[in-house]
Amino acid sequence: MLRVLGVDPGLTRCGVGVVDVEPARRATLVHVSVVRTDPELALERRVLAIAEGVAALLDEHRPDVVALERVFAQHNVRTVMGTAQASGVVLQAAAARGLTVALHTPSEVKAAVTGHGGADKAQVTAMVQRILRLDAPPRPADAADALALALCHAWRGGAAPATAVEGPGSLTPAQRAWRDAEKSAAARRLER
Amino acid sequence: MLRVLGVDPGLTRCGVGVVDVEPARRATLVHVSVVRTDPELALERRVLAIAEGVAALLDEHRPDVVALERVFAQHNVRTVMGTAQASGVVLQAAAARGLTVALHTPSEVKAAVTGHGGADKAQVTAMVQRILRLDAPPRPADAADALALALCHAWRGGAAPATAVEGPGSLTPAQRAWRDAEKSAAARRLER
Repeated sequence: MLRVLGVDPGLTRCGVGVVDVEPARRATLVHVSVVRTDPELALERRVLAIAEGVAALLDEHRPDVVALERVFAQHNVRTVMGTAQASGVVLQAAAARGLTVALHTPSEVKAAVTGHGGADKAQVTAMVQRILRLDAPPRPADAADALALALCHAWRGGAAPATAVEGPGSLTPAQRAWRDAEKSAAARRLER
Repeated sequence: MLRVLGVDPGLTRCGVGVVDVEPARRATLVHVSVVRTDPELALERRVLAIAEGVAALLDEHRPDVVALERVFAQHNVRTVMGTAQASGVVLQAAAARGLTVALHTPSEVKAAVTGHGGADKAQVTAMVQRILRLDAPPRPADAADALALALCHAWRGGAAPATAVEGPGSLTPAQRAWRDAEKSAAARRLER
């Protein structure tokens, strides 16, 4: 099983979602929340609050890997610098714990979860709810993106089939862990 | 006296300069260096290395305030996200130590040090050398910007005259510290 912590970075609201994904791709919700900061605070206090909030969730849920949204300078010019600063402290918090961080673009996430890269927010939320077998859409609403990121990572990278053409050298630690898990699962099936 | 640690943020090269500025505005070089990271490393490792490098310099030099270049999304699209991620971990490192971070734009820095906001790199370096009474331009060459940032902050904000029209409520802790230092210096002069 692979535990992925997904982060949708932001300075005012930073979404965090944790999922467990089994080799058969069945996914289970572990945690979802949003780390918030007061826009009235000084920038350095806000960045520190994001860092501390994410660090606490990393320590609580001990994921195997972190999935982070890849931020582009072209996105939303007004908020992009804060988003990038928040992603900086998430990268640091993960690396300080020996974790690998995988970056995925919003369209990769949408494609992985809904089947097409141009899906809207409602479609992503609906698919996250369905994939995680939840009775209602995940709350807070904007945390669905963090869960989608975590699922995207598990399926695109971490949950790549063990028969993937890539050599071991190009695999992330999570991918290797996953491949090894799949191999041992296959071995167990053969033993039966 | 005010000790300012200036940071010119970057993921490959992050300039750090420390200056002591006396109330009479005489400035002395304390430290200058560049924290470097290997572009071959994973992004999260590089961000962590910047964070650890800057944190070590904060602990070694114990500045009163940190001055950081304000990054704009419009700058250099290719490198701006890495620059913003580096600035994120600098903000965090400062806030974790209870320090205020002042942001200054490149043109503010150039104007403060050379007298005009459109000065080129050579002019900034020459003025930094002169202000700090150095025998040669500061090395590494790209660390001059971090020193210019620190000087800019001391002069624009921290070293504002005690007669400034702003009330105490609008002063940063560094500005208050500076104002108080100037007041006690003035009091000592009166006592003579």
